Amino acid sequence: MTAGAPVVLDAMGGDHGPAETVAGAVAARRAHGVPVVLVGARDEVGRELRRHGAAREIAVVHAEDTVPMSERGAAAASRPASSLAVGCELVDRGAGGAFVSAGSTGAVVASAVRGIGRSGGVLRPALAVALPTLPGGTSVLVDAGATADPSPAMVAQFALLGAGYARAVLGRADPVVGLLSIGSEPGKGNRLTQRAAELLGALPLRFHGNIEGHDVLAGTVDVIVTDGFTGNVVLKTVEGCVRTALAMVARAGIASPERLAEVACLYDPETHGGAALLGLRGTVVVAHGLSPAATIARACVVAHTLAGRDPAGGIEAAAGERVP
Amino acid sequence: MTAGAPVVLDAMGGDHGPAETVAGAVAARRAHGVPVVLVGARDEVGRELRRHGAAREIAVVHAEDTVPMSERGAAAASRPASSLAVGCELVDRGAGGAFVSAGSTGAVVASAVRGIGRSGGVLRPALAVALPTLPGGTSVLVDAGATADPSPAMVAQFALLGAGYARAVLGRADPVVGLLSIGSEPGKGNRLTQRAAELLGALPLRFHGNIEGHDVLAGTVDVIVTDGFTGNVVLKTVEGCVRTALAMVARAGIASPERLAEVACLYDPETHGGAALLGLRGTVVVAHGLSPAATIARACVVAHTLAGRDPAGGIEAAAGERVP
Repeated sequence: MTAGAPVVLDAMGGDHGPAETVAGAVAARRAHGVPVVLVGARDEVGRELRRHGAAREIAVVHAEDTVPMSERGAAAASRPASSLAVGCELVDRGAGGAFVSAGSTGAVVASAVRGIGRSGGVLRPALAVALPTLPGGTSVLVDAGATADPSPAMVAQFALLGAGYARAVLGRADPVVGLLSIGSEPGKGNRLTQRAAELLGALPLRFHGNIEGHDVLAGTVDVIVTDGFTGNVVLKTVEGCVRTALAMVARAGIASPERLAEVACLYDPETHGGAALLGLRGTVVVAHGLSPAATIARACVVAHTLAGRDPAGGIEAAAGERVP
Repeated sequence: MTAGAPVVLDAMGGDHGPAETVAGAVAARRAHGVPVVLVGARDEVGRELRRHGAAREIAVVHAEDTVPMSERGAAAASRPASSLAVGCELVDRGAGGAFVSAGSTGAVVASAVRGIGRSGGVLRPALAVALPTLPGGTSVLVDAGATADPSPAMVAQFALLGAGYARAVLGRADPVVGLLSIGSEPGKGNRLTQRAAELLGALPLRFHGNIEGHDVLAGTVDVIVTDGFTGNVVLKTVEGCVRTALAMVARAGIASPERLAEVACLYDPETHGGAALLGLRGTVVVAHGLSPAATIARACVVAHTLAGRDPAGGIEAAAGERVP
């Protein structure tokens, strides 16, 4: 078994509830050696654990309240007895090494900001998702949906957070950052990206300049930085677009769906195991709401790997010095 | 040959210049029966026409000035002797039925707004692109890049323009409109989409509510409405994503690039022949800057088909009554 503080898993998050999350916790521990603590309704979670014969293997921390998937972020964060709040508190006081939830993104983000807090100097958190690219590499998309209306300074910070992630998780020594915009020439874009580009040019970063939508999967840069609205639309467009293109190939009789599965799974939200929420004083991974047990287990593995690394390191100084 | 006023083609637009545009004009006339007038540098365009033996077949209107592809919109629109300005003027005074250019989108939009003018009540123009969807249908994406920073009222108008296009061009009697956002529940999104959703709910439209990125190619709605920044990023993400997914299929040895071409070409910007600029008092089609002759010819056919139809019809009343 891997050493270190356990991963805290929100047993109540996701569209399938404890049945899938508990199965995911059991798989994370048994198949991947990741220590897990479950947070949620004690009786319900205990019953699921007993079905797997794992009641003595995985601890449960009781949380009386559950945030429904439809709840908005601010409302979710004001429920102190929820599994989200209790889980974040465990991480905040060091009893857990990382927090994983398949709850709604807005609710997890708001609860984590309140319960764990932002790293010094960080204005807003950002979600990072690793996308497979054509040359066989990986680009990080940040923000993939945490902050829908960031200021230009926040977007500039997302670039620093994304570069930190690329260094810590992908092992890129000096990651190249591109700003997602319309038109690659300097000055092209909307007001937000025009101002963000100016700020990015002044940061201690390898700034490539503007990139466009066709660069997202082309491996043009290591880090694709954008606001959380555009990033979330792009992420879901990519997922849907790959599905559609492969379905059209199958429908035209060019290849069978079974043969196409190896490409399909690369962009399936159930494969990548979750998005990392960057900029907090603790590790948080948001899994997809529809995640089945295997995906929950993967999210726990990702969280365990990320725990203790610090993609936000250096933001404080850079933010204080360079970002208005 | 088809009757009606000729299509006015900007001979100087696009990355390949008159060599491709003139070849496209010749193909539009000879292969598709579309009457074309070329606008541009008389000597250069005449030389290209003679190469095709078409000097007596296609008229040339001289324009002394050419807007470079890198020029910003506002600067481009203040060049009265440019092929863009002269071409738009021909359409404005009825000598041409429609204008086609492969110049930079910003320059074409700004020149068309100045030279042809907006339809009554229209706040800003929007680009419409028809995207093939999974069930074998077509959805219209609007705005695909004309207005990068619209107000919520402008986004609501884009929906009316897109619905008009879907009726006039795609033959949908009562098109369904979806607002591209993050989260399908009402109230999800950024500030722009939250306010736009309220306005859309009050318009005489079949408003589906919010849609997400994975709906873009899924045929969920007839009209996908969004701001020009998000729309342009999404359009280019779709193009790049289909290319990447198919290249991965080819690289894995699942199918040859030749067999995949029939799917690839559906989303190739060189296939669809251009985006329609909606909301003006005349028809304008923006072709892709890299367009080869065949694509230019297709854009002329699309423009000729659109000419005389009026996707902006009814905006004035609706805008006056309902959009603040």
